[in-house]
Amino acid sequence: MADLSAVDIDFGDDGLVPAVAQDADSGEVLMLAYVSPEALRRTVDTGRAHYYSRSREELWEKGATSGNTQSVVDVRVDCDADTLLYVVEQDGGACHTGHRSCFHRSIAEIDDAGETAQVETTGERVFDPDDVYE
Amino acid sequence: MADLSAVDIDFGDDGLVPAVAQDADSGEVLMLAYVSPEALRRTVDTGRAHYYSRSREELWEKGATSGNTQSVVDVRVDCDADTLLYVVEQDGGACHTGHRSCFHRSIAEIDDAGETAQVETTGERVFDPDDVYE
Repeated sequence: MADLSAVDIDFGDDGLVPAVAQDADSGEVLMLAYVSPEALRRTVDTGRAHYYSRSREELWEKGATSGNTQSVVDVRVDCDADTLLYVVEQDGGACHTGHRSCFHRSIAEIDDAGETAQVETTGERVFDPDDVYE
Repeated sequence: MADLSAVDIDFGDDGLVPAVAQDADSGEVLMLAYVSPEALRRTVDTGRAHYYSRSREELWEKGATSGNTQSVVDVRVDCDADTLLYVVEQDGGACHTGHRSCFHRSIAEIDDAGETAQVETTGERVFDPDDVYE
């Protein structure tokens, strides 16, 4: 049996920690969202990815509306305990635009200020968002 | 030639955007750090990963001290333009603990409050930090 040690997760000033979601099969980085203590506890307890929406200010189960759920295979914590990694089996696509990954645009150029990028879309859509979100 | 479109990166209230670094070869998620406009511009211009240290309050080139540099193959931006993904060729290990990835610990249990985790270390060390950081 593996040795366990206790780690206090650093939820930061706003009480949230960023969580990267990665596809367990392909290794693709799917999305980044934020997690509250309750969202983390529900994720570990249920095996389904939960986050906290900063805009809606509420706990959120991924896929509860869209059906694009995430079954969590592993939850990892980084060396500083201020970022999580959800390793997930993604049903459908992770992105509300219909793409498999939210990171479907590559930066080709950046302006001198470093604030405005010229991007090209590289990822393919796996579902039509009009069919999923009403 | 691909169609380009302009995207304003959302650097948030603190002027920084989180960036996930992923190994281009293995797909492993290596680390998460924060990026200022100048760090992003230097990353795109030089092809070497730059970040902004929130604790030291300074621009930072990954590996400048340790030698564990990151050659950037692709910089992606997510659907909300508030997170970046650096796809990198990682020299040595990304983590200051000597591990290949900062996400080398898995959560086995979480307390009721969702704040304290029992973790086990899963990743192997690829270098001895005592040899690298003085």
